[in-house]
Amino acid sequence: MGIKTKDEYIESLRSLNPVAYMFGERLTNVIDNPRLRAGIEATGATYEMAQLDPGLVVTQSPLINEPVSRFTLPPASVEDLVERVKLNRKVANYVGTCHQRCTGLDCLSTLAIVTYDLDEKYKTEYYPRFQEFLKFMQKNDLTGNAGVTDVKGDRSLAPHEQVDKDMFLRVVEKKADGIVVRGAKAHQTGSLSAHQIIVLPTRAMGKDDKDYAVSFAIPADTKGLIHVVGRSTLDMRELDGCDIGNTYYSKYCPTLIFDDVFVPWERVFMCGETEFAQDMVVKFSSFHRQSHGGCKSGKIDCMIGCALTMMDYNGTAKVGHLKEKVTDMIHRAETLYGCCLASSYEGQKQPSGAYFIDTVLANASKIHEGKEMAEATRMMIDACGGFVADLPSDRDFSNPEIGGLLKKYLKGVDSVPVENRIKMYRLAEKLALESADTISDIHGGGSPAAHRVTILRETDTARKKKAAKRLAGIKD
Amino acid sequence: MGIKTKDEYIESLRSLNPVAYMFGERLTNVIDNPRLRAGIEATGATYEMAQLDPGLVVTQSPLINEPVSRFTLPPASVEDLVERVKLNRKVANYVGTCHQRCTGLDCLSTLAIVTYDLDEKYKTEYYPRFQEFLKFMQKNDLTGNAGVTDVKGDRSLAPHEQVDKDMFLRVVEKKADGIVVRGAKAHQTGSLSAHQIIVLPTRAMGKDDKDYAVSFAIPADTKGLIHVVGRSTLDMRELDGCDIGNTYYSKYCPTLIFDDVFVPWERVFMCGETEFAQDMVVKFSSFHRQSHGGCKSGKIDCMIGCALTMMDYNGTAKVGHLKEKVTDMIHRAETLYGCCLASSYEGQKQPSGAYFIDTVLANASKIHEGKEMAEATRMMIDACGGFVADLPSDRDFSNPEIGGLLKKYLKGVDSVPVENRIKMYRLAEKLALESADTISDIHGGGSPAAHRVTILRETDTARKKKAAKRLAGIKD
Amino acid sequence: MGIKTKDEYIESLRSLNPVAYMFGERLTNVIDNPRLRAGIEATGATYEMAQLDPGLVVTQSPLINEPVSRFTLPPASVEDLVERVKLNRKVANYVGTCHQRCTGLDCLSTLAIVTYDLDEKYKTEYYPRFQEFLKFMQKNDLTGNAGVTDVKGDRSLAPHEQVDKDMFLRVVEKKADGIVVRGAKAHQTGSLSAHQIIVLPTRAMGKDDKDYAVSFAIPADTKGLIHVVGRSTLDMRELDGCDIGNTYYSKYCPTLIFDDVFVPWERVFMCGETEFAQDMVVKFSSFHRQSHGGCKSGKIDCMIGCALTMMDYNGTAKVGHLKEKVTDMIHRAETLYGCCLASSYEGQKQPSGAYFIDTVLANASKIHEGKEMAEATRMMIDACGGFVADLPSDRDFSNPEIGGLLKKYLKGVDSVPVENRIKMYRLAEKLALESADTISDIHGGGSPAAHRVTILRETDTARKKKAAKRLAGIKD
Amino acid sequence: MGIKTKDEYIESLRSLNPVAYMFGERLTNVIDNPRLRAGIEATGATYEMAQLDPGLVVTQSPLINEPVSRFTLPPASVEDLVERVKLNRKVANYVGTCHQRCTGLDCLSTLAIVTYDLDEKYKTEYYPRFQEFLKFMQKNDLTGNAGVTDVKGDRSLAPHEQVDKDMFLRVVEKKADGIVVRGAKAHQTGSLSAHQIIVLPTRAMGKDDKDYAVSFAIPADTKGLIHVVGRSTLDMRELDGCDIGNTYYSKYCPTLIFDDVFVPWERVFMCGETEFAQDMVVKFSSFHRQSHGGCKSGKIDCMIGCALTMMDYNGTAKVGHLKEKVTDMIHRAETLYGCCLASSYEGQKQPSGAYFIDTVLANASKIHEGKEMAEATRMMIDACGGFVADLPSDRDFSNPEIGGLLKKYLKGVDSVPVENRIKMYRLAEKLALESADTISDIHGGGSPAAHRVTILRETDTARKKKAAKRLAGIKD
Repeated sequence: MGIKTKDEYIESLRSLNPVAYMFGERLTNVIDNPRLRAGIEATGATYEMAQLDPGLVVTQSPLINEPVSRFTLPPASVEDLVERVKLNRKVANYVGTCHQRCTGLDCLSTLAIVTYDLDEKYKTEYYPRFQEFLKFMQKNDLTGNAGVTDVKGDRSLAPHEQVDKDMFLRVVEKKADGIVVRGAKAHQTGSLSAHQIIVLPTRAMGKDDKDYAVSFAIPADTKGLIHVVGRSTLDMRELDGCDIGNTYYSKYCPTLIFDDVFVPWERVFMCGETEFAQDMVVKFSSFHRQSHGGCKSGKIDCMIGCALTMMDYNGTAKVGHLKEKVTDMIHRAETLYGCCLASSYEGQKQPSGAYFIDTVLANASKIHEGKEMAEATRMMIDACGGFVADLPSDRDFSNPEIGGLLKKYLKGVDSVPVENRIKMYRLAEKLALESADTISDIHGGGSPAAHRVTILRETDTARKKKAAKRLAGIKD
Repeated sequence: MGIKTKDEYIESLRSLNPVAYMFGERLTNVIDNPRLRAGIEATGATYEMAQLDPGLVVTQSPLINEPVSRFTLPPASVEDLVERVKLNRKVANYVGTCHQRCTGLDCLSTLAIVTYDLDEKYKTEYYPRFQEFLKFMQKNDLTGNAGVTDVKGDRSLAPHEQVDKDMFLRVVEKKADGIVVRGAKAHQTGSLSAHQIIVLPTRAMGKDDKDYAVSFAIPADTKGLIHVVGRSTLDMRELDGCDIGNTYYSKYCPTLIFDDVFVPWERVFMCGETEFAQDMVVKFSSFHRQSHGGCKSGKIDCMIGCALTMMDYNGTAKVGHLKEKVTDMIHRAETLYGCCLASSYEGQKQPSGAYFIDTVLANASKIHEGKEMAEATRMMIDACGGFVADLPSDRDFSNPEIGGLLKKYLKGVDSVPVENRIKMYRLAEKLALESADTISDIHGGGSPAAHRVTILRETDTARKKKAAKRLAGIKD
Repeated sequence: MGIKTKDEYIESLRSLNPVAYMFGERLTNVIDNPRLRAGIEATGATYEMAQLDPGLVVTQSPLINEPVSRFTLPPASVEDLVERVKLNRKVANYVGTCHQRCTGLDCLSTLAIVTYDLDEKYKTEYYPRFQEFLKFMQKNDLTGNAGVTDVKGDRSLAPHEQVDKDMFLRVVEKKADGIVVRGAKAHQTGSLSAHQIIVLPTRAMGKDDKDYAVSFAIPADTKGLIHVVGRSTLDMRELDGCDIGNTYYSKYCPTLIFDDVFVPWERVFMCGETEFAQDMVVKFSSFHRQSHGGCKSGKIDCMIGCALTMMDYNGTAKVGHLKEKVTDMIHRAETLYGCCLASSYEGQKQPSGAYFIDTVLANASKIHEGKEMAEATRMMIDACGGFVADLPSDRDFSNPEIGGLLKKYLKGVDSVPVENRIKMYRLAEKLALESADTISDIHGGGSPAAHRVTILRETDTARKKKAAKRLAGIKD
Repeated sequence: MGIKTKDEYIESLRSLNPVAYMFGERLTNVIDNPRLRAGIEATGATYEMAQLDPGLVVTQSPLINEPVSRFTLPPASVEDLVERVKLNRKVANYVGTCHQRCTGLDCLSTLAIVTYDLDEKYKTEYYPRFQEFLKFMQKNDLTGNAGVTDVKGDRSLAPHEQVDKDMFLRVVEKKADGIVVRGAKAHQTGSLSAHQIIVLPTRAMGKDDKDYAVSFAIPADTKGLIHVVGRSTLDMRELDGCDIGNTYYSKYCPTLIFDDVFVPWERVFMCGETEFAQDMVVKFSSFHRQSHGGCKSGKIDCMIGCALTMMDYNGTAKVGHLKEKVTDMIHRAETLYGCCLASSYEGQKQPSGAYFIDTVLANASKIHEGKEMAEATRMMIDACGGFVADLPSDRDFSNPEIGGLLKKYLKGVDSVPVENRIKMYRLAEKLALESADTISDIHGGGSPAAHRVTILRETDTARKKKAAKRLAGIKD
């Protein structure tokens, strides 16, 4: 036990036997499927970095009093909050895509706060249960996956108002030894790279939504759990073994169906306490938006590197407006990073002893992400040139009839091997256009509207009005 | 002869036998290749609309005195300029992607002006040659493809300075009956949907670039011409026959290699007159940027329709911030359209009698496109929801083990069949993420920097300074 | 009678005796008050240009069959619509601020359409009355001022729901020979530069708002009418005769109080027909937004001239990022202009024979104005330098003790007299920071939200949804 | 000695006798001039808050081992860096404008680092001299003013290349007891609110610019020093005592002429060490950009308060798009604040023991300020309504003939006294349109281009390229 190597991590996944489908077929070997493997490798990088740079990843757990990966550590100090951001930026820069391990940590971080508050109010036992679960995660250096986003059905209706009551995950039966849940969670990035699925509610719940206010954890291969991997734009490339772009890593997003899944009580962390549903989802979302800020600034770092390298290869390294665009990209990376760092440094201790970030600053970062990642991508494409769209295949380049001609004509500056230019264009395509990765900029951690609602709600507007009135000379 | 039906158009392509490669293999049947066929169908829609809405498409040619498609008509009046924009918007809205027939028309429109000016200056015979070619295009209702964008090699060097002199297409031999050309043109959207390839230079040429100042037309299956279809993000979908998104249409972009291709003199429209190279590319680019304005506003119309329909299906049709986003999308469509319409209405007669648009206004439209199409896309994704990224495959939906569950959980509002919601999500994915289509927003018609240079150069800044000085009370 | 010269215009104003207040004092001589005179001069420029450039300003009136100024001509053709835009751009560029004569013309243009429709429905006599009024305006080449924006009280309440019923202008008495009206109109740019005040309702009216659905015209010095000139940022400068910036022209905005004003029936153009109130305000607003597009592009032209001249004076004419900013300014000017031109070219004949613009395109222009004028201003300030904020006074420059030192240190490039640089900075300050002028970019012609509502309402969304469904393969 | 009260501060200024001009006249009493007093009051607020909230302002000086105001304390820890941001935000929110005391502190903070480095390299005595000066500032709780921005002459020329060699401040004579300097510094916010003027070079200096590489401090009333207060948009209001807007505070910006001013050696902190000029200005600029981030987020807080209060008063508090705009304003405030906080938390100890911020993050904040303050202002104006531009004067409201009518018609919601609404509109005008305050958003701390150059230069681009190459599979 203890910190796993990357190989141990991958082997540990082999012991699981999840029910998974992709493109209409049941998968028998998840781990060695090239498409999923590229995603698993990205999570694997979090283990690899624990070896390569232990100072960055490994810390002491106050709970088990052993060294643990920061990816299993709910923040217990401001420093822990800050390190989350720095770690995410570095891992994202290393993998050039989503490493998929943040959502599980964001769940652990949330539960480390809210289960305690639940017990305080209801004299329940969620917090000690959660502590046990956390020990298990830490001791085995496991990866969790957050099951948050319900499929939602008709969005104008509350959970209990839906025609089909299962459009939000709910408890359909309570037993002596546990509960049975039914529903589906969408956009479950990395669910097959994870050992455990950790479920939280997706929204605030009203009194009539009691069955929907549920939180728990289960192994990723629990009976009744079905992973259906969604299509993404470049999903055939890894399967086909050609024109991959990012040599090592990728991302995939299943829909996760809970077809009457049993959860033992020791893994249930909320069950029916509707007024805490909002608290859970707000805490989780804030943590997750903070995770994004680190991660996506790291991805922009990759895009900057890609743009600058292409400029070297194209002979445009000194073109003024391209340097301006790179500067704009840096500005966006640092804005996401800066706001998330600040939200961490301004974090506060919670009753359980765990730490929580400044919500307004974390959401300020995410609002930028929702708009500016698309801008950064657009600028990278602008700087790289049109072959991001329509580069011939590696198979064309190695075709004996036309390969020579293609290599002749794809050459950029004389000193750079044409192969390097081709590879960098392929990376640019991957960075810009892999839907599973890029669309999380917009919808990950909730939609942009949700972030806006949050910062308005969390801001002390009364104080601002008071200051303005004083200056205007208004007494009231 | 005369206006072709769509079927006649497609049959006419069968008589060509171009050399084409895709994913490393020589194609034996271009027309029935599902991926290319979807592109050919998009061009086919320009023929189909001539039947469906002749008032929109068909007009009288002053040259051959017969009804012709506007897609073969260089503008001979302000009305013709305006109709280009309206026609492009409507066809784009009909196909939801690039119809690929504008570039050839933009070449014809350019040559109808510049070959006349060339002859005026040099007593050459380019204009009558071009007139003959134009008659041929009009009488047979042919589709042309613009060969403009050279591969360019090291962009810090002029054509004649390149280490490999072929990085810009050039004349390598002059013979009694014609010329031999060598080089490659990138991003040749629809080159296999076209009967004729029309080549123009890609930039201004200096005195030492004489061999590069060349313009001509050749059949798409001329000996030595090689079409290499590039990868694009969703390119396997049509081949695979599944998860296509846009039921009918798509786009593809080959790289076109001219491996010592012979061009008879009667199809050569410029050869060595370096100072007209700039004029050709500026005219072409301006026409093409105007084409984009019509076309892309029509594509935004599709995206608006997609967003609004998804809102109906999701139960979010009344959500304020989503209506705001749709309004923003409309605003962008109308901005592109408005500036292009204005550039047309303000068009001017040229010495040859053909008409040319207002360059500043056409470029103003394109600058918006380069930035705002990405914004419109982002807003569509925001309005639609996260399944744009990771919707399960149609094969999952029809899998007997999980299809029922997936359909249950993908349901939106109760009154809408789940199949419709799935189809609309798939269309959203296609509209947002097909690289061959989306990246032309940025790089089509030249890069954003080129549009900016154009509007600064074409603006009468001296007059503006004079007005400011008068108001400031400065005499000089 | 007939076209007035600028001098005749100014003399004609002397024959009026309006009740006017400014800074707490009753004005006895409006015409020679330096602050108001600068505004009157701007309107005077519309008369001056009729002499300087009659081809631009003077046309034949189909109504009186005499040459008239376009500023009294409701558009009777597409050409008339287009000329409005071009005329406004040129006059604005000439005066560098608001010429204040567009609002009256926008009222005439609106009434030329709506009074006809009113009569058609109600067999009233508004249209012939209006025709008589129009003849009077044309024959005497008069300036009208639009009284549209009511003070509105509590904006969450309809007119008839207000605690004080006078918060929207209303009919308080109907007499045999006319009506008595009470209320106040805000932001009445140029009300003292005008001969006639033309009142329209400010919003759609419900059934209970009958008294508020009123339109009429009265002389600017009618009994009971009180002009209260508001403060603006630089309003003391002309009064003080120093540091004026724009040597000739300025703008001012009174609040206009109708303190039980009598209007004879022959000048009443609507009275109680509530359902036409919306039509009036929508038509007026669209015309006015189109006026803005021409006018504000002309103002940006001045700002471009100012920025470029300052760059010449500062030695920064070749700095890349400043040229980029000037390009951005040009882009904004042409966007406003292009959308407005297009809205004009796409205009349609109305039942009365008058022409109306395309509303969506006119509003698209105004949405840009609301956001982009501030951007253009910011860029001008950036290009000019910090002395836009805090240039010493001309009195400092002529002070014998420090004037020499100041001139020494304010010098830019050696070849430019320091006086010129000082004057241009002062103009930049005026262009950027005169509130009466700049805030109309945001609130003139209704708030930005109103423009957005308009384009969403006027767009055929059903057609767009239908196109998307066809492409997605959805039948319904 | 020790912490001064606000009254003591103001009295201490009375003992100075600076040479000052405004609007062409020599000022005999700076302190009681209403225009300047409003600025002095803003600086006075920094003293007032030391009484009101000593925990915020007062700390222990490690240098003199006494309690001092943070406004005289070069940061000696990360906490000190962070407190600068929080303090600036709070004071700015309290005064609603520039408090003018940050620039002096930014000079002290810079010199606390660079004089040490100078001595390390050259074995000079600048650091101990500076320490003595700092003790003097701390013991007497003095306000410093930064003299940085030279007037610059022809910006295409280096200092020594200028036709007039005095366009950058320079040493014209070296004496046994000190130096004589000549030149002028522009935009000297608060130079008459300060006890000491602290001069730094404005740019990097080359070998031939030796005389220009000079830093020193002198009393604000030193012989030869001339303060010429520049015009700003609302500068007559305080003089006139009417329509002031911000009841207590304002800002003013003199040009400062050094007409052969003698500086004793003990106040000279650099003299001829050209290669440190850049270091000084970069350090100062970074500190000052960080100061702006705190300050301007505090000003946006005022603008938010103003907008929300006006919405309450107008009856628009529940209007969706206005709440969106307020949210956008919050987002901008938090972005400035977040990036500056992060730049502080990431600060590093320098050789002298003083702390310096992260430059990239501080500049990222300032880039946002340069663009987004104008946006925040635009949104405030949008939310408030058109009377920001043209509200009648208080003198009109108190005029017996029209005051009653005006108050009747300016009423908003019934429950709010009309006087309050009028006052809040006046504040909005002041916040939006006082040029001395608003233009510093753009040009304060250097132009936007300078901030962009900084973040590109300070970013480790090689590391980013390396990461991209690894992912692309490129070895080099």
